[in-house]
Amino acid sequence: MTVSTEDRLARAALSFIAEPGDTLLTRIVAACGPSGALEVIKCGRAPDGIARDPRERERLAVHLSGWRTRLPRADPEGDLTVCAKLGGRMICPGEAEWPTRLADLGEKEPLALWLRGPSDLRFTCLRSVAVVGSRAASPYGTRVAQDLGAELAERGWTVVSGGALGVDAAAHRGALAADGDTVGVFANGVDVAYPPRNDGLIAEMAKRALLVSEWPLGTSPTQLRFLVRNRVIAALSCGTVVVEADLRSGSLNTAEHARRLGRPLMAVPGPINSRQSRGANQLLRADEPAICVTGVTEVIEAVGRLGTDLAVRPRGPVLPRDELDAVTRRVLEAIPARGGAGPAQVAVRAGVDVPTVLGRLGLLSAGGFIERGRDGWRLPRHRKGRAA
Amino acid sequence: MTVSTEDRLARAALSFIAEPGDTLLTRIVAACGPSGALEVIKCGRAPDGIARDPRERERLAVHLSGWRTRLPRADPEGDLTVCAKLGGRMICPGEAEWPTRLADLGEKEPLALWLRGPSDLRFTCLRSVAVVGSRAASPYGTRVAQDLGAELAERGWTVVSGGALGVDAAAHRGALAADGDTVGVFANGVDVAYPPRNDGLIAEMAKRALLVSEWPLGTSPTQLRFLVRNRVIAALSCGTVVVEADLRSGSLNTAEHARRLGRPLMAVPGPINSRQSRGANQLLRADEPAICVTGVTEVIEAVGRLGTDLAVRPRGPVLPRDELDAVTRRVLEAIPARGGAGPAQVAVRAGVDVPTVLGRLGLLSAGGFIERGRDGWRLPRHRKGRAA
Repeated sequence: MTVSTEDRLARAALSFIAEPGDTLLTRIVAACGPSGALEVIKCGRAPDGIARDPRERERLAVHLSGWRTRLPRADPEGDLTVCAKLGGRMICPGEAEWPTRLADLGEKEPLALWLRGPSDLRFTCLRSVAVVGSRAASPYGTRVAQDLGAELAERGWTVVSGGALGVDAAAHRGALAADGDTVGVFANGVDVAYPPRNDGLIAEMAKRALLVSEWPLGTSPTQLRFLVRNRVIAALSCGTVVVEADLRSGSLNTAEHARRLGRPLMAVPGPINSRQSRGANQLLRADEPAICVTGVTEVIEAVGRLGTDLAVRPRGPVLPRDELDAVTRRVLEAIPARGGAGPAQVAVRAGVDVPTVLGRLGLLSAGGFIERGRDGWRLPRHRKGRAA
Repeated sequence: MTVSTEDRLARAALSFIAEPGDTLLTRIVAACGPSGALEVIKCGRAPDGIARDPRERERLAVHLSGWRTRLPRADPEGDLTVCAKLGGRMICPGEAEWPTRLADLGEKEPLALWLRGPSDLRFTCLRSVAVVGSRAASPYGTRVAQDLGAELAERGWTVVSGGALGVDAAAHRGALAADGDTVGVFANGVDVAYPPRNDGLIAEMAKRALLVSEWPLGTSPTQLRFLVRNRVIAALSCGTVVVEADLRSGSLNTAEHARRLGRPLMAVPGPINSRQSRGANQLLRADEPAICVTGVTEVIEAVGRLGTDLAVRPRGPVLPRDELDAVTRRVLEAIPARGGAGPAQVAVRAGVDVPTVLGRLGLLSAGGFIERGRDGWRLPRHRKGRAA
């Protein structure tokens, strides 16, 4: 789909005039188109049916007057020009780079996104995980976020986060360190390095990855904007992991968005005497508990396609057949398909010495691959019906 | 119920002759009585119907000959006398001190229990929690187990555990430190201080609390006995908490017993990079996940009676009405039942100054107690239908 210059300019103007995620504005744009919405704002009269109850009517009146106040200062052409000079771009719903997944936000889908960086937003988010958490991360949270970011990147998954201090920054850094892709979704313009302490990271992401914002250049973040922004983090990614969060962390808001969107919500367990893990641990106790994840394979299992991205359950000796070392596998393969065999027989068939065979038989037995019967070691009865 | 001297002696002999938890022996005792079971062992012939398939017939033959070998060395009178001299006692199913809860073990219910210590087993286990975990506990696990033991004791709950090094010992110690009751269930005779490093703790428990064993005096523990013992820990208590466990910890076996018995199974989350928390964290990921617990109130909520033992969910500002401080409560009570009120009005009605009122209104609003309407602060519409 191509977006007309008029519509593009109108969307750029709307992204300056209105705070994003506004259902009333979404309805106006759906009814009148983006340029039509600007007309509505100019004349201050919305078509019938936009506000559906007295409260919404009240809110619409307040918003229309607020938007109109900002309208004269809108300079969409200037914003787009400056953005292009920075190497950035603005994308609109329906364009090739627009992630279809964002439609799950319904009336809270962004009207436009401002991007900066070489990655293609839609493509990079196809396999992506949001890694979020406390700004005031503990060394544990920082370490876990960085490792998770790097390990996701190594497996071809994109790390989506909010570019904040603490967990967010560690996750982005981990992804970059592993030469992977990462998407920072900001509550400020993609030309603003916020928080200032992350300026190096943000510059690196602009050069090698991607910065995303619903707000045009020059916009500063506010508390409310962080919350509004969180829905985009949850909606862009296949699932959200809360690495470390105290009870009032904004990442719990992102978690709530992921849950509402029906995306897998995960939490990393942490020490119960660490304030910074209280929020994540509480997610594991919620009525609809978050999935407890203790490593990257478990994260990918939760967000990946069934069957292809299954985590190996770390259970002492129980290993899938593929994971057995060569000798153990030879011993397993020397167990006859029918009846049983003694260690000496197995040793001969496997070409492995008896002491080694004895050790491996114990291992295989503990792993459930074989069992001891009256006539020696044998495959378990139920084996045939089981995927190996 | 009173147990005849003959039956008591027979059970004491059986507890020496046979390993506990044997379903075949349970069936023989059910069919022939305890003394009859000794006769069966003497003559080496069980009644029809004890073994129900060829495998069980094979096992029964092996066991009967094994039991008969031990029979001549049984000295139940001597064992009971020595136990009594130590201040101990042996109890049998149906006696006043026998916990009825053990019947949930079905054919694996103990035939007798050897006790040492002043507490009444049945009474002390009425409100009890098993706190178990790794022998090789980290400082985190030790700390959590000790705190949990003490906090359970302070609330009148008994700590049941296995008397092992690490988590078990810390939980027992915590309970004793808080002057509470604690039950150590051992895989050895109650006169044997095992592990030796816990001898001081075990002596203290014998003096102030309770040692329990299925084995008569002088018995040493074996690997198998630890596993057999674990079912008793799970069955004696209202629920089991795994504090810290690596993937091969015996406490995961206790956890499995608790699950099978339908008792609440809980796990304390821990750092994912700590080997000692891997087992507990995996319990939180199981297909039937353990309940994630981060403190004593959550443990008691899981095992306690519904309604009376409910944990306060630690969620930033959301508090039940009872938990509000006096000033906040006055502000809440100054909100009119119908219509709304401004801060000044509320301040007059509550007798609290306006700046304080403003702060409390924000808190109450965040907690969902009040909302801001066109005519000022008011009670939310849905409030009436909600328990406060």
